[in-house]
Amino acid sequence: MTAGARRGRRPGDPAVTRRVILNSARATFAADGYERATIRAIAARAEVDPSLVHHHFGTKEELFVAAHEFPISPAAVRAALEGGEGTLGERVTRLYLTAGLREGGAFESLVRSAMTHPPARAMLRQFLERGVLDTLAPHLGTPDARFRILLAGSHLMGLFMMRRVVGVDALRDVDLNQLVAVVAPTIDRYLTGDLGGVPAAGQPRAGTGPGGR
Amino acid sequence: MTAGARRGRRPGDPAVTRRVILNSARATFAADGYERATIRAIAARAEVDPSLVHHHFGTKEELFVAAHEFPISPAAVRAALEGGEGTLGERVTRLYLTAGLREGGAFESLVRSAMTHPPARAMLRQFLERGVLDTLAPHLGTPDARFRILLAGSHLMGLFMMRRVVGVDALRDVDLNQLVAVVAPTIDRYLTGDLGGVPAAGQPRAGTGPGGR
Repeated sequence: MTAGARRGRRPGDPAVTRRVILNSARATFAADGYERATIRAIAARAEVDPSLVHHHFGTKEELFVAAHEFPISPAAVRAALEGGEGTLGERVTRLYLTAGLREGGAFESLVRSAMTHPPARAMLRQFLERGVLDTLAPHLGTPDARFRILLAGSHLMGLFMMRRVVGVDALRDVDLNQLVAVVAPTIDRYLTGDLGGVPAAGQPRAGTGPGGR
Repeated sequence: MTAGARRGRRPGDPAVTRRVILNSARATFAADGYERATIRAIAARAEVDPSLVHHHFGTKEELFVAAHEFPISPAAVRAALEGGEGTLGERVTRLYLTAGLREGGAFESLVRSAMTHPPARAMLRQFLERGVLDTLAPHLGTPDARFRILLAGSHLMGLFMMRRVVGVDALRDVDLNQLVAVVAPTIDRYLTGDLGGVPAAGQPRAGTGPGGR
């Protein structure tokens, strides 16, 4: 039970309920890690019914994203993967480059902790493995989908950090549409193009036997 | 003057001198920012002659890199830009993907501070603008060199973080040579390929007048 949960509680006010659940989620994920944390445990810590957590935030993945104020949600990436204007690469690139970041918010705390505390790093890794990749990979539908999504995602994440967080002139000042035009072909190639036969990670490679390299 | 400098000082031991200078450099950069910090001020705080700082660490840029244990030094990138085996993209990509990172070292602290403290973020930005880009851009020699280097650098930085720091399976487990083969064409395109006429940031664009967008 967090201090915020006890103090701020006014039963019936949805905004308060949401805040209490988000506080409880951050505390539970930090204590238990992403994989072991359950909606039930988060609800218990927040002193609400689990159905209320689902009602407000959907899945555990979505709750993690909301609690840590991710600039880009897997749900938005999923929508971009499914269709819309322009190429797949254009849609995904534009999504990353127009994402918002709250100064001093929970996402900054998450990245900061992940840089220092091995448990926070493990929590972030589990979320990426079990939340993001398990959810997005089927939308790409190829055996190397996880590798492709990480290639594209790490590129866009680095670009986001350098343009929006660090704010280096020569990247910050470039027009959004021009930047999308430059980067989108790379993202298209990473997600759906010919990568020269890189095997899907975690699958045995021909001639090396299971797990061999 | 840092505690370490007073305690650890044994005149004449080069290892001690280096450590005292590195401590002084970190403290001076943090207090003054990258641009305003001088070798003279760093030497004064370390109670050594400025020539000794130059002797041990070269330029201010190189001292900043050494003090913050950057996984990749601009000097190494410069060497990769100048020549060697394979394409430019292959050399730079391999450099990033084989870089070392000391767990709990000064680089982690730097990234962590940059995520939280605006002055630390400004220090990092100044270093990238004045240290990295001013040094590397002439080696590419095009008007949009700064933009190109940031495109490539932010991609490789994101890849490094996701593979080495977060350590997500599908990226961590891919064979280095295969990853270089997949990523190098992107880096070649960003550094020297056709980007469809994106203007160099900071230069007035045709038809918009100075500073217009």
